Formats: sequence, C-alpha cells, structure tokens
Amino acid sequence: MTSEQVRSALAEFIAERDWSQFHSPANLAKSIAIEAAELLECFQWNDDADDAAVRSELADVVTYCTILAERLGVDLDTLVLDKLEVTRAKYPADKARGRSDKYDAL
Amino acid sequence: MTSEQVRSALAEFIAERDWSQFHSPANLAKSIAIEAAELLECFQWNDDADDAAVRSELADVVTYCTILAERLGVDLDTLVLDKLEVTRAKYPADKARGRSDKYDAL
Amino acid sequence: MTSEQVRSALAEFIAERDWSQFHSPANLAKSIAIEAAELLECFQWNDDADDAAVRSELADVVTYCTILAERLGVDLDTLVLDKLEVTRAKYPADKARGRSDKYDAL
Amino acid sequence: MTSEQVRSALAEFIAERDWSQFHSPANLAKSIAIEAAELLECFQWNDDADDAAVRSELADVVTYCTILAERLGVDLDTLVLDKLEVTRAKYPADKARGRSDKYDAL
Repeated sequence: MTSEQVRSALAEFIAERDWSQFHSPANLAKSIAIEAAELLECFQWNDDADDAAVRSELADVVTYCTILAERLGVDLDTLVLDKLEVTRAKYPADKARGRSDKYDAL
Repeated sequence: MTSEQVRSALAEFIAERDWSQFHSPANLAKSIAIEAAELLECFQWNDDADDAAVRSELADVVTYCTILAERLGVDLDTLVLDKLEVTRAKYPADKARGRSDKYDAL
Repeated sequence: MTSEQVRSALAEFIAERDWSQFHSPANLAKSIAIEAAELLECFQWNDDADDAAVRSELADVVTYCTILAERLGVDLDTLVLDKLEVTRAKYPADKARGRSDKYDAL
Repeated sequence: MTSEQVRSALAEFIAERDWSQFHSPANLAKSIAIEAAELLECFQWNDDADDAAVRSELADVVTYCTILAERLGVDLDTLVLDKLEVTRAKYPADKARGRSDKYDAL
C-alpha cells in the first residue's frame, strides 16, 4: 500500500519536527480513532457530506495508519490481503451475498 | 497508496458478495470509526498490545479506507501528500519541534 | 439517572430549536461516538489532560446519551443497573479480581 | 445525574474486583470511545437497529461516563446543565431553529 514516496515524505515530516517520540502504537491508535470520528462528523446529521471535508479527514486517518504500519514494520498491502483471506473464510460468497449480517448471523 | 493488486482484490471480494449496495460513504465512515475503536481496544487498559490483534484491526481500518477512496474516486497517495502540505503549513518545523501541542497553541 | 431537571432542560433546549427532527437513534449514536472521540482527544499524546476540557467533552457525551435514552423511552438508571447484572455474571469477582482481561480470557 | 443508587452499585462492583487501578481518566476515555463505537455498530449498515442491543451498548457508554465522573469528582447533572448554557450561547434559538449547521456556519 502506501507508496515509498508517501512513506518517505511522512518520515521526513516527522523527523523535521522530532515527533516520533509521540508516536507510540497506543498514541497512534488513539489518533486513528480521533480522526475516524472527524470523518464520521462529516455525516453526523445526514448523508450529504462536503466532499473536500471527507477527503481531508480520510487523509488524516490514512496518514496515521501509515505511520502505525511503519512503526510496526508491517506492509499495509500484505496486511490487507492477509486479512481479506480471513474475512473471505468467515463470509462465504454464497451465504453472504446481498446480506449485511454479521458472520455469526448468516 | 493501495496498490492496484489490493484494489482489485477488494473489488472482486465485494462484487462476489454484492456488497457495494451497503457501501455508501456514510456507512463506510461509520465502519472506519467502528474498526478504529476495535484497534483502540487493543490498548484499552495498557500500552502492551497483542501484535497480531493490532495488525488485524489495522487491516480492517485500512480496508474500509481503501473502499471509501475507491467510492470517492480519489487516490490515497495524492490525498495523503496533499494533506501533508496543509499540515506542514499549520505546523512549521521550527515552532512545532518536539511539541505535541495543537497548531493554535504553538 | 439524569434527573428530571436535566431531562426537561434538554427537552426545552431542543424544542426551542426544532432539533428533534435530527435526533434519530442512528444520528445520536454517531453523535455519541463523535463526542467520545473529542473526549479521547484530551488524552491523545499523554495522560495529563486539561480538566476543564475533559469535563466539557464528557458533558457532551452524556448529553447525547440522555437524549438517546429519552428517544428510546428508557431510564438510564435502570439500563445501567440491568447491564451491571449481566457484567457481574460475566466477570465473577473471584476470577476477575485485579485483572483487566476480557471475560473469555479469564 | 446518575442516582446515588447507581453510583454505589458501580463502586461496589469495582471494589469487589479491585479494578479501580485500571480506571485512570485516560483509560476511561478510551473505554467510552470503544463502547460508543459498539453502540454505533448497531447502526452500521442501516438505521433499523435491534433495540436490546442499542440499550445494552448505551448502558456501557453511560457506565464508563459515570465512573469517569466519579473519578473526576464531578456531578453529571451540573456538568450537563453548565455545558447546556455554553451551547445555548453558541446556538441562539432564532438562528439555529430547524438547522443542523455548526455554530460557525449559522
């Protein structure tokens, strides 16, 4: 995921500000939840959100996800593809088709 | 961000299950917030989280972020790099160095 | 929970602004999550939060919880006490004492 | 808010399990956000939530809010009423009537 270009731009940004001291996995998890709620706020009262605001908040969520992945030394591509296999097994296409139920209610 | 391989694997997974009907931007924003809280739960009572659990929950957050980006027709790389310029202007390196304060308190 | 005084103050505040039209349970659930993340933001980078900010954000969470309870026609006292019995059964004192593990890991 | 009966039932429950050691304000803020997201999950894919699930998750949010208020030594009634005055000033009834806009967009 995250191209090398993005990863190095983020690393440089953080190094210039000496901010890696704040980026413990726990603090990054809080930060992801906080930014995710700001994204949700775009849809608080109705489904018509301002596009620019949605993009800006989504960027913040993904930025912290990328920093956390770097911190953990994991590749986001691999992470997502590995998890997709787990989800695939929990939600077989023939049982899950067209349904939003949780796997234990399929 | 998200390589073409990940995007097409997710698209195929969703199409097989006819799930795009559930993936309005508003529902995806809720999903991102829900998964972000599951990631946070790994750190609920202390900072020593189980690595496998963290990776699994981070994967879920990034999965929904990727689906939302596809839905919006935006490229995550561009999104993150554009937002980084905005943040760079709000947090000049010389003022923000070594500080976790918000930009309006620098 | 919520004294009659608080409930009627909130009801009057909402009626004066004709806001009950926005207060579907789904929108209130989003609002609670959004305000909970603002409370969390007080602790984003460290555990020393500004007391006034914490109180202000906690107030917002509880305000929306009270409005949702009214909307559902439930009494918060009863709700909390009923749930406490469920939790009591899941976390027997002798097994859970001094441990922060989830019930299925006790 | 929270009646004396609820507060003492929670205090007894926590004391029996020796759990107050885990209840730092920061951990309680995380817990409130985590439970708020579980409440939100009831509405993840549509607005028709299961009533029992909503009540159960709302109970969890309010339980942690009550524990945090006790920890801070604040009265939830006072907190909510004080904040309502702040909100009242930010959202004058004549400007805010029938609108879900943020105060700075009124």
